[in-house]
Amino acid sequence: MKSHILLLILFILITFSVYGESPKMQQHNLMPIPSNIEFTQNQYRLDSTFTISILPNNNNRLNEYATRVLRRISGRTGLFFTQDFLTEKSKPATIGLTISFKREGEVRLGEVESYSLTIEKTKLILKSETDIGAFRGLETLLQLLQADEKGYYFPTVKIEDKPRFSWRGLMIDVSRHFMPIDMVKRNIDGMAAVKMNVLHLHLSEDQGFRVECKSLPKLHELGSDGLYFTHEQIKEIIKYANERGIRVMPEFDVPGHSTSWLTAYPELASLPGPYTIERNWGVFDPTFNPTIEETYIFFDKFFKEMSELFNDEFMHIGGDENNGKQWNKNPSIQKFMKENGIKDNHELQSYFNKRLLEILTKYNKKMVGWDEIFQPDMPKNIVIQSWRGQKSLIESAQKGYQGILSNGYYIDLVQPAEFHYLNDPIPADTPLSPEEQKFILGGEATMWAELVTNETVDSRIWPRTIAIAERFWSPGNVRDVDDMYRRMEIISSQMEELGLTHISNYEMMLRRLTNNQNITPLKNLVDVVEPVKLYARHRQGKKYTQYTPYTRVVDAARPESMTARRFGKLVDEFMLNKNEEIRTELRFMLMNWVDNHDEFLLITKSSPVIQEMTKMSFNLRLLAETGLEILDGSMNGRIFLDEWKTQKLKLIEAAKIPYGQTELALNPTFEKLINSVQMK
Amino acid sequence: MKSHILLLILFILITFSVYGESPKMQQHNLMPIPSNIEFTQNQYRLDSTFTISILPNNNNRLNEYATRVLRRISGRTGLFFTQDFLTEKSKPATIGLTISFKREGEVRLGEVESYSLTIEKTKLILKSETDIGAFRGLETLLQLLQADEKGYYFPTVKIEDKPRFSWRGLMIDVSRHFMPIDMVKRNIDGMAAVKMNVLHLHLSEDQGFRVECKSLPKLHELGSDGLYFTHEQIKEIIKYANERGIRVMPEFDVPGHSTSWLTAYPELASLPGPYTIERNWGVFDPTFNPTIEETYIFFDKFFKEMSELFNDEFMHIGGDENNGKQWNKNPSIQKFMKENGIKDNHELQSYFNKRLLEILTKYNKKMVGWDEIFQPDMPKNIVIQSWRGQKSLIESAQKGYQGILSNGYYIDLVQPAEFHYLNDPIPADTPLSPEEQKFILGGEATMWAELVTNETVDSRIWPRTIAIAERFWSPGNVRDVDDMYRRMEIISSQMEELGLTHISNYEMMLRRLTNNQNITPLKNLVDVVEPVKLYARHRQGKKYTQYTPYTRVVDAARPESMTARRFGKLVDEFMLNKNEEIRTELRFMLMNWVDNHDEFLLITKSSPVIQEMTKMSFNLRLLAETGLEILDGSMNGRIFLDEWKTQKLKLIEAAKIPYGQTELALNPTFEKLINSVQMK
Repeated sequence: MKSHILLLILFILITFSVYGESPKMQQHNLMPIPSNIEFTQNQYRLDSTFTISILPNNNNRLNEYATRVLRRISGRTGLFFTQDFLTEKSKPATIGLTISFKREGEVRLGEVESYSLTIEKTKLILKSETDIGAFRGLETLLQLLQADEKGYYFPTVKIEDKPRFSWRGLMIDVSRHFMPIDMVKRNIDGMAAVKMNVLHLHLSEDQGFRVECKSLPKLHELGSDGLYFTHEQIKEIIKYANERGIRVMPEFDVPGHSTSWLTAYPELASLPGPYTIERNWGVFDPTFNPTIEETYIFFDKFFKEMSELFNDEFMHIGGDENNGKQWNKNPSIQKFMKENGIKDNHELQSYFNKRLLEILTKYNKKMVGWDEIFQPDMPKNIVIQSWRGQKSLIESAQKGYQGILSNGYYIDLVQPAEFHYLNDPIPADTPLSPEEQKFILGGEATMWAELVTNETVDSRIWPRTIAIAERFWSPGNVRDVDDMYRRMEIISSQMEELGLTHISNYEMMLRRLTNNQNITPLKNLVDVVEPVKLYARHRQGKKYTQYTPYTRVVDAARPESMTARRFGKLVDEFMLNKNEEIRTELRFMLMNWVDNHDEFLLITKSSPVIQEMTKMSFNLRLLAETGLEILDGSMNGRIFLDEWKTQKLKLIEAAKIPYGQTELALNPTFEKLINSVQMK
Repeated sequence: MKSHILLLILFILITFSVYGESPKMQQHNLMPIPSNIEFTQNQYRLDSTFTISILPNNNNRLNEYATRVLRRISGRTGLFFTQDFLTEKSKPATIGLTISFKREGEVRLGEVESYSLTIEKTKLILKSETDIGAFRGLETLLQLLQADEKGYYFPTVKIEDKPRFSWRGLMIDVSRHFMPIDMVKRNIDGMAAVKMNVLHLHLSEDQGFRVECKSLPKLHELGSDGLYFTHEQIKEIIKYANERGIRVMPEFDVPGHSTSWLTAYPELASLPGPYTIERNWGVFDPTFNPTIEETYIFFDKFFKEMSELFNDEFMHIGGDENNGKQWNKNPSIQKFMKENGIKDNHELQSYFNKRLLEILTKYNKKMVGWDEIFQPDMPKNIVIQSWRGQKSLIESAQKGYQGILSNGYYIDLVQPAEFHYLNDPIPADTPLSPEEQKFILGGEATMWAELVTNETVDSRIWPRTIAIAERFWSPGNVRDVDDMYRRMEIISSQMEELGLTHISNYEMMLRRLTNNQNITPLKNLVDVVEPVKLYARHRQGKKYTQYTPYTRVVDAARPESMTARRFGKLVDEFMLNKNEEIRTELRFMLMNWVDNHDEFLLITKSSPVIQEMTKMSFNLRLLAETGLEILDGSMNGRIFLDEWKTQKLKLIEAAKIPYGQTELALNPTFEKLINSVQMK
């Protein structure tokens, strides 16, 4: 036991040095950054007499929003505010925040969301055109709350703010793994906290159909395993989102990705059934038959009901990844194509889409679909959601189609926040003219749900989506990556008050993994690993399905290791400037990793599920030992030999092998460190 | 910074020594303990071929329960079971667990819940009369899961199990602070995990009416702030509970505790309105007028609807704490009493209850109420829930009334698990005859919601309710307190997999309290404080209401400090046996507390909300220094002076002063330690 005490001390020292910073007045924690912000060097000091007044006070939605904000301030500060609930009967007060707005906003694309917030020493003033603008301003206010020894305060400031893009979305796939209504609600609150305004619900998949359909009840009865939202629940979600100025756009993915629909209505498939709900992940053959009229009678009925249920003007019909195999195999479909001069499956899908467009138009909905729906002869009133990339978005904008970017915002691919952050719907070097740029409405982060459950999904959405939210709201020239990370961690932590589990479920999962032993040795390791990137996880010996466990190390590990990032930053600094203080800090981290391995071995004895990480833990130890050698050598002016370097680079190669579908996030830094040594 | 490193090392050493124990074969972690259990020294080794078969397989409820159990085993072990979903189409398998049962149980009082579970080296057999018995057995199976270096296994065992009491309840007050449906569901899962079978929902209070009422819609429209369960949600809760063999008994508390009802229907009050939803805590005057027929027309309509909505045979009408003030002040009520020979307010309430009983009987419901409904002339088919104590329960049982005990199970009073655990609905020395004992149906833990929100409520229910659940299920002679605490901590940790937040929200709250600084100094302190007991929290200078913050240290602090308990146990051991190893361990804890104070002061600078704890932190330091003095002195044979002792006992007195409505849970142990020193 005593052998690793030192490393623990060191770890603690580092933790202190990271967390111990005192807040600086010049810095702010706003995210997304407002378009205009001007701090003055004063403070509005907060006490229990603080109140909020709203003019006019007859807007229930804003009264309730402001009441929640009051509670959140009270929750953070522990202040017993005398004001209780804001209602139509509330009288304007003279102390605190005054909100004034002109009209109730419509929760629709393009509605005004701008606001101005002025904080002076004695009062706070929030002004906006719509109540939705006031919602955005109130979230800014919450992010401004600060503390010092004497108490809580808001810094004095003048903010004028408006969004860069009008479509700032998060898509949640509630179909592959069903997500309960509570998950949707807490994530709506998360979206509101960072000023996102479109919740795109992916409501059907091969693996499940997730909405009660009264006119075609077999859909939810046979296609969902009993896991679906009732009409009442959908209305509850829409109301909850709309009360936060967030649209809810449904997606029903057809003609492919439809095994669950065809389980219920096999007569509409392109090949004879029966079908059963798909349990595996991938792209599957079952596809609606676009050549029979029954299909359109079905969709007419279906979209009539869904158009009434969902109040958004847009309806997403998916349209992606239809592999066409069933169409090729069905002679009557082939015959239909020949008779109607339909050249290929793309044209056939285009025919299908146009038939759906007629139906949607009849029910006053605008069509949205993935890249595949973009066919030369489609009318201009559709919106294209691009999963394929900038190129296809640019092409469609140039042809006059509205588009939103999702390529580069696939948060299920567990890439770093930086990657998503620097991905811009309209990059500085865009070839689009200003007129053409107007067709780019914004973007959406997409949370596909093959590899997440209710327990882990928040940690895949947050905190990285905060960075994406800033990309969609703030001016395009806001691109300071280091400052983004600094603010993202603070806002991420604040978001816990909304019931989001992205931080708290981490140690919960480690507790289960260690079978109630001390989690520290596992945490030290998992803090520096990340799930393998992109879709590599499906190709490493484990066949994931809808019912396999998502409770292993790879699921607990965060998409982006902040410890690895800090280590990388320290090494960069050290390489620039062989500073003794940085060296001490680095030594602490390295010794912690060296000593951790024995402790890790100890807990694996009662915890077989983590034994898959033993080699990773050993590799970490070897690399950390190498790191110490380099650190000490570089201070002593040691000259390293070729052999040494060759051998150490082999260690790196070995450490690059994933274990438990995770990878060691420290590898690039160690590789850089090894390559930096002074050679003969 | 360096000054407190040592204490941190010591703390870590302690943590290791506490967690580092290896599991012993003789010990088991079952809770509640089965009535008969016999371990044999072998194991059923678990691998991915494990399956569950059910005979007959046509019971959906059990198929789904067993599927969830399969997922939970998979979640803990990381095993990729080949079996997916248990359905009516599942074929019996030869490997693994076979469940057989005779009939679908009814979710009603007295239904058979017994089961037998036999685990052999090659198979597991679960047998029961009803599917509900199988649910209970499956939870036992989950608690038997163990691990060693080679993998996961179940120990071989023979269990015959049945409950001691047929009414094992948890009351949740969803009215004073409204609780979302997700909170109710996760706690139903928690109840099922420890074999409880009655969820008693306290659905109305002065502060809110929490169910949609279609026939009297003003109740939820005007009495709830929009926070209520719809009919569909109530049905969802009942279905969810019934699928776990748990009854849902509604309580509508009348004629007192009814401000929210009278806000909607002031014409039924005993004095003229208007009324508004109460925001304060306490006992309030507004009471239904029992002397006008309109009241009974109202309740006829009301209970007709609620009797249809709730499927349980019992309906709880509350009946507690009517202060009678409004009745005394209303001349027409006084006149009615005189005319009808009603002597006092008790008789008037009895009259009211009898009128309600007629209504409930008409709608096929049995009446339950708090002690106050027990009046000499009430018919024998009512059930009395005793909040007043054993005495009133005994009295009513002797008179032939059925009763359930809640006195001693008021978990909102933040008393230790031990207290509740040793409180028995039928203590060994009961004066009741065996025949009379049959009238005692069981008991209920009561989670009153003045001082809890959705964020903290789980931590007030769990883990202590696990101990209560054992009291209600296990034989009366199961009373080993130390072993109870050992098992309770393990089961508590396992219950995290159900989405309960009783552990994970603790550090989340500390993160918010420290304003995103390092939480360790705060955690060291809060780990050893407890909220002041009983209702003392209302009498310490903070006026709590429905809208005040419940996010301060007192809310993060757990009802019972496990660290304080461990410290107490160590000191007891040390006083028996001046063992060097124990002394070292105690020194570690004490030095940690001594050094913590400076660190604590540091973080208070950016975190004003925790400054109310500064004196407590300082007192802890002084007491810990005293503890070190005693420890060292006692090893050196030091003789202490009277003066010294007097001075130190003054420290204890000072340390007994609560700060932030919390008390230092270490005080009794320090006092014992001081009193133990060798004097002249």
